[in-house]
Amino acid sequence: MTDDALLAALKRGERTAIARAITLVESASPEHQRKADALLSQLMPGHQRSLRVAITGVPGAGKSTFIEALGLALIAQGKKVGVLAIDPSSPLTGGAILGDKTRMVALSRSENAFIRPSPSRGALGGVTAGTLEAIWILEAACYDVILVETVGVGQSEIAARALVDCFALLMLPNAGDDLQGIKRGIMEQTDLVFVNKAEGENRTAAERARLELLQALACLRPATAEWTAPVLCGAAKTGDGIDDFAAALWRFDAHIRAQNLLVSRRSEQMRHWLRERVSHAALKKFWAHPDVATQFADLATRISGAPGGIAQEIAALLRLSGLS
Amino acid sequence: MTDDALLAALKRGERTAIARAITLVESASPEHQRKADALLSQLMPGHQRSLRVAITGVPGAGKSTFIEALGLALIAQGKKVGVLAIDPSSPLTGGAILGDKTRMVALSRSENAFIRPSPSRGALGGVTAGTLEAIWILEAACYDVILVETVGVGQSEIAARALVDCFALLMLPNAGDDLQGIKRGIMEQTDLVFVNKAEGENRTAAERARLELLQALACLRPATAEWTAPVLCGAAKTGDGIDDFAAALWRFDAHIRAQNLLVSRRSEQMRHWLRERVSHAALKKFWAHPDVATQFADLATRISGAPGGIAQEIAALLRLSGLS
Repeated sequence: MTDDALLAALKRGERTAIARAITLVESASPEHQRKADALLSQLMPGHQRSLRVAITGVPGAGKSTFIEALGLALIAQGKKVGVLAIDPSSPLTGGAILGDKTRMVALSRSENAFIRPSPSRGALGGVTAGTLEAIWILEAACYDVILVETVGVGQSEIAARALVDCFALLMLPNAGDDLQGIKRGIMEQTDLVFVNKAEGENRTAAERARLELLQALACLRPATAEWTAPVLCGAAKTGDGIDDFAAALWRFDAHIRAQNLLVSRRSEQMRHWLRERVSHAALKKFWAHPDVATQFADLATRISGAPGGIAQEIAALLRLSGLS
Repeated sequence: MTDDALLAALKRGERTAIARAITLVESASPEHQRKADALLSQLMPGHQRSLRVAITGVPGAGKSTFIEALGLALIAQGKKVGVLAIDPSSPLTGGAILGDKTRMVALSRSENAFIRPSPSRGALGGVTAGTLEAIWILEAACYDVILVETVGVGQSEIAARALVDCFALLMLPNAGDDLQGIKRGIMEQTDLVFVNKAEGENRTAAERARLELLQALACLRPATAEWTAPVLCGAAKTGDGIDDFAAALWRFDAHIRAQNLLVSRRSEQMRHWLRERVSHAALKKFWAHPDVATQFADLATRISGAPGGIAQEIAALLRLSGLS
């Protein structure tokens, strides 16, 4: 397929074209990277009809089930839904032991959904490598909502916040335990909370968790100006509360557009992405310098016993690389 | 206190000296960094009597309770125990909502324990910034076992593996759920597993989890040559299984010493630390270049609409910085 044909197929929303474009972007081959760069430069600039939403939460909070339920609800509203993942846990051997294939079966059958569970890593560097590019590709294919699932807890949330317009947090009814696991830094990023698995005997605990979360959020500066993060209860498995969550999502969408926050957030995302790309390229260039490589090996051997006194040595290494 | 007095107090194991030294290492002030560099260069080189152990697991697995129980058990064996944390989740506002002060009360009362819950961040850069330095300081003060607690799941485990001799994973009895949360990459790092909260009605589930984990581990390449990771069950809260875990830890310790793996692992840790330090210094230098800063701001504005076609632009930025 020629580059132009790929672009045209992408704009028509063809799924094989989307998959091929994302593969190009993630590829480590210089030839693919050149093609990817050319493709990205032709994507519709400043596409801001879409909404990018991070779905985060501790393992076991039910993120997959929630994303499937929310995705189907949004599709029922006439939207096209993309699902991506950020997974910082394994740069070498990614992939959950139980695999991704059994997840989101109903959603993956819909022709208005595109699911890309685990990015292949390493081509561009950084936790978010390839994810923002995949978002652009899905938006060029006219996807309305991009759900970015974070895998793990910690680094991936921070990375996700730099990619999305809206940051949603899934919690379990026993919030006491959860509040210990969820850090203040993550609560401070949060635009929407959903207390999942609030069914049967968990209902009371979920309502208590809801109040505790509202209290905790009230002590923090809101992640989005003039927006009080709502805390909803429900059960993704039965679909309870999902429509309310979708409604809250659209209220948030309207809010950030009315306040002109979407434009500034996207421009911030772009700057962050560019900075990561440049940093990665600079480090690659630095370590590829033959004198730097030799000198580093020598230094590592010399200091292997006593770790101090290396400030001068590092400065010498930087001079070798030409950095001035 | 003079630098020499600090070093002497450190070697006598004085806790205020340990705290002061760690603060120096974490400080962003150039003056403190010079002092820290001088101090580190005087620490006993190649101290390899200690054992460095990462304690990882999903939030809610009971890491704090486990570390407290294990720490007290090791102290009862006549050891000195240091506890550090790696927390990648919030570069800006670290700290759990429920705080660290109420944790490990009994352990923190022991004069043979030193607990440093959350590193202050940003001075050196990188997830592990300051942690390896704190390990060296504790070792200079004759601590025998350094327990490194990971906060969050994902990035912090990968970072921890590069710092420690032994990687321990805490699991909950419902391993099916856990296996979904714990990635293959983390299992591949694991030297020891403890299924926590195996008490009362959870015992059967814990035993099943134990067998599933053994099966999963058997499919993977061992993290440490010629070592089959044992999977133990117990309950940190009651102390059940903790002595067995400590015994397994010492078997592991004997194994890596007998196989000469400790030396190679430590030298690998040092090389990794040095590489992080140098990368951080190189990036700092790169971004501090006035022409780079100006040109980057210009580029970010120009491409804010269309993200492609920037390979040439990035190459130009690198040339500006002098990297050759």
